[in-house]
Amino acid sequence: MLILVLNAGSSSLKYQLINPKTAEVKASGLCERIGIDGVMKHEIAEHRKLEIEQPMPTHKEAIEFVLNILTHDDTKVIENINEISAIGHRVVHGGEYFKKSTLITKDVLQKIEELIPLAPLHNPAHILGIKICQELMADKPNVAVFDTAFHQTMPEENYLYAVPHEDYIEHHLRKYGFHGTSHHYVSNEAINMLNKKESKVIVCHLGNGSSICAVKNGKSIDTTMGLTPLEGLVMGTRSGDIDAGVIPYLMDRKGMNSHEIVDYLNKKSGILGVSGISSDLREVLKEAEDGDHRAKICIEMMCNRIKKYICSYMGQLGGADAICFTAGIGENADVIREKVCTGLEFLGLEIDKKENKKRKSGNREIQKDSSKIKIFVIPTNEEYVIAKDTYNLVKKA
Amino acid sequence: MLILVLNAGSSSLKYQLINPKTAEVKASGLCERIGIDGVMKHEIAEHRKLEIEQPMPTHKEAIEFVLNILTHDDTKVIENINEISAIGHRVVHGGEYFKKSTLITKDVLQKIEELIPLAPLHNPAHILGIKICQELMADKPNVAVFDTAFHQTMPEENYLYAVPHEDYIEHHLRKYGFHGTSHHYVSNEAINMLNKKESKVIVCHLGNGSSICAVKNGKSIDTTMGLTPLEGLVMGTRSGDIDAGVIPYLMDRKGMNSHEIVDYLNKKSGILGVSGISSDLREVLKEAEDGDHRAKICIEMMCNRIKKYICSYMGQLGGADAICFTAGIGENADVIREKVCTGLEFLGLEIDKKENKKRKSGNREIQKDSSKIKIFVIPTNEEYVIAKDTYNLVKKA
Repeated sequence: MLILVLNAGSSSLKYQLINPKTAEVKASGLCERIGIDGVMKHEIAEHRKLEIEQPMPTHKEAIEFVLNILTHDDTKVIENINEISAIGHRVVHGGEYFKKSTLITKDVLQKIEELIPLAPLHNPAHILGIKICQELMADKPNVAVFDTAFHQTMPEENYLYAVPHEDYIEHHLRKYGFHGTSHHYVSNEAINMLNKKESKVIVCHLGNGSSICAVKNGKSIDTTMGLTPLEGLVMGTRSGDIDAGVIPYLMDRKGMNSHEIVDYLNKKSGILGVSGISSDLREVLKEAEDGDHRAKICIEMMCNRIKKYICSYMGQLGGADAICFTAGIGENADVIREKVCTGLEFLGLEIDKKENKKRKSGNREIQKDSSKIKIFVIPTNEEYVIAKDTYNLVKKA
Repeated sequence: MLILVLNAGSSSLKYQLINPKTAEVKASGLCERIGIDGVMKHEIAEHRKLEIEQPMPTHKEAIEFVLNILTHDDTKVIENINEISAIGHRVVHGGEYFKKSTLITKDVLQKIEELIPLAPLHNPAHILGIKICQELMADKPNVAVFDTAFHQTMPEENYLYAVPHEDYIEHHLRKYGFHGTSHHYVSNEAINMLNKKESKVIVCHLGNGSSICAVKNGKSIDTTMGLTPLEGLVMGTRSGDIDAGVIPYLMDRKGMNSHEIVDYLNKKSGILGVSGISSDLREVLKEAEDGDHRAKICIEMMCNRIKKYICSYMGQLGGADAICFTAGIGENADVIREKVCTGLEFLGLEIDKKENKKRKSGNREIQKDSSKIKIFVIPTNEEYVIAKDTYNLVKKA
């Protein structure tokens, strides 16, 4: 029983072949520059790495090439395609239609299409990926796992924006939130670690894209990303929260149009824009250590924003049992975890600085014994969640 | 010793004649529809109210008419203009130039002009008001009191947005904050009530426009309004915080341009937009009591946002000694104060519901005896602060 997990982007395709019972990854990789020229980075069972230039005029050739490399020659990890039981697709936007992962039917596919205005860059690529799989592997079930689904439990007062209500009704203008697969997985792990029935958990998913989620009794009640993934935290290249009045101001001052400004807020801002160094936090941390003022301010801004949201979500939850750190930065940047927690001792949050600095794998606790609130580091694994959801849905069907 | 306090808007002029030592208001009023036709609402010593239709083709005629009504016939409160010692002008935007109130010189006036791009609706009207006073009362000093000045103590990590740093340098793109006169006055009153040298105070200025300010040892360290007064809380007609990605989304869906969208976020959103009833909270509270769902949600959204900021500012301050409520809603809407404080007991914030409901004037405390954090209701008085600042600067000169 193996699941092929696909994440189709506009010119890229991420894939993993996973055993959903053991979490074993048979092979994984990334096709890039689809439609331009085509290059594949492929990894077999985490020990052999390949980089192959291969013309990929469309996503179809990319998926065919993935299926080929999995089943042929010395890269072979399965005898033939029949060993794949189902395909799990990451789908960014499920709107208000999808509250959980779902088997893809004609109706489901149509709804994902309807949602294109809400995710104009992502949903079309996902649909393409799904249709190609239906064509190339006609007998296999496809499952959609949505980034938005976990946040569909948010209460009205948290998902509505304070705009004319007609625009929620007519144009579906509301907060959706993203990274749901990760927030769901990590909060679930945390609840298991807490071993409590009623729980208040805050998950900080800090990667190149970042978001925080307030989870009450296993359900998302608020999250920092909004209608789009621009809102909330300071990210690699995204500004996060900003006065919407900035847009016409910059349009007037810089002669850009509104789409250019939003592109600027999404791709040239955040850590990259403030530091002027890189969107990669590791490089900025190094420069900050060497005394670079803008690098230091950038880290302060990023940590401050995280801190503010942790506190505001404690207000939403009426306290917290655990704060969880996950994803690239959350799992690896001990300096960031320390900065975020420092100053919040009045809330009963006390980080164990030594424990925090240790490099360990797996789920772990880094609070002091005296801390009222637990601090967890929990490695996220979105592909594994997609594989498991897919397996469970296919098994039932 | 009397101070004339002026707040000149694009087609309006608010005025008060105040004794800065006793806070006595000799007369006050509002000229509206300047440049259209002209109507004045005038009040003498808080007991006699007049409404006069009077052609006011420009602000000059309006100010002349104010000076006339103060000194002539049965509306006379002073013998002649010489009893006015100085004029205090409310100026919305002082940019990074002005960290406190200042005597207006040629250089000061030029700087207020330079700042027009940051306050295109307000600063031109203020300049007009100042120039007319210089012309009509050539011997009298004029003082500018800025809405932004109190927030100039915010640290870099709080006033910078996560955008390319060049745009802060070149275009002065940053958070400025507003309502500074009120936050300054109220936090000062709170510090006096606390009688503490080192203090952590959070001021909730809740009116038709609303903002919250975190005040550490008397200095503003963060506030909810940003480059413009659109950011932050849910207000009468303003959305407050919203994903900037909403702007191009709505432009595409509704065929509006970005200036129309910002107008929509400033004038058709907030309490008015969500409730569909009114921008006046009192009407919405009434409908909510009668069971109207949208009115209820609107109030939840507004209170939730306030609650989130109180918590996030406690994170910034490392706790709080006092939470203060001021301005129209903050001083009068006990239901809102109760809703905001409820659920924050884990922070040591306990409102005394009975005390909260009592109608009293002056500064008062509404927390329970067991509450670790004080809850103050402090009536704000921006005109009085402008008069005092003006008096103090003129006295020194």
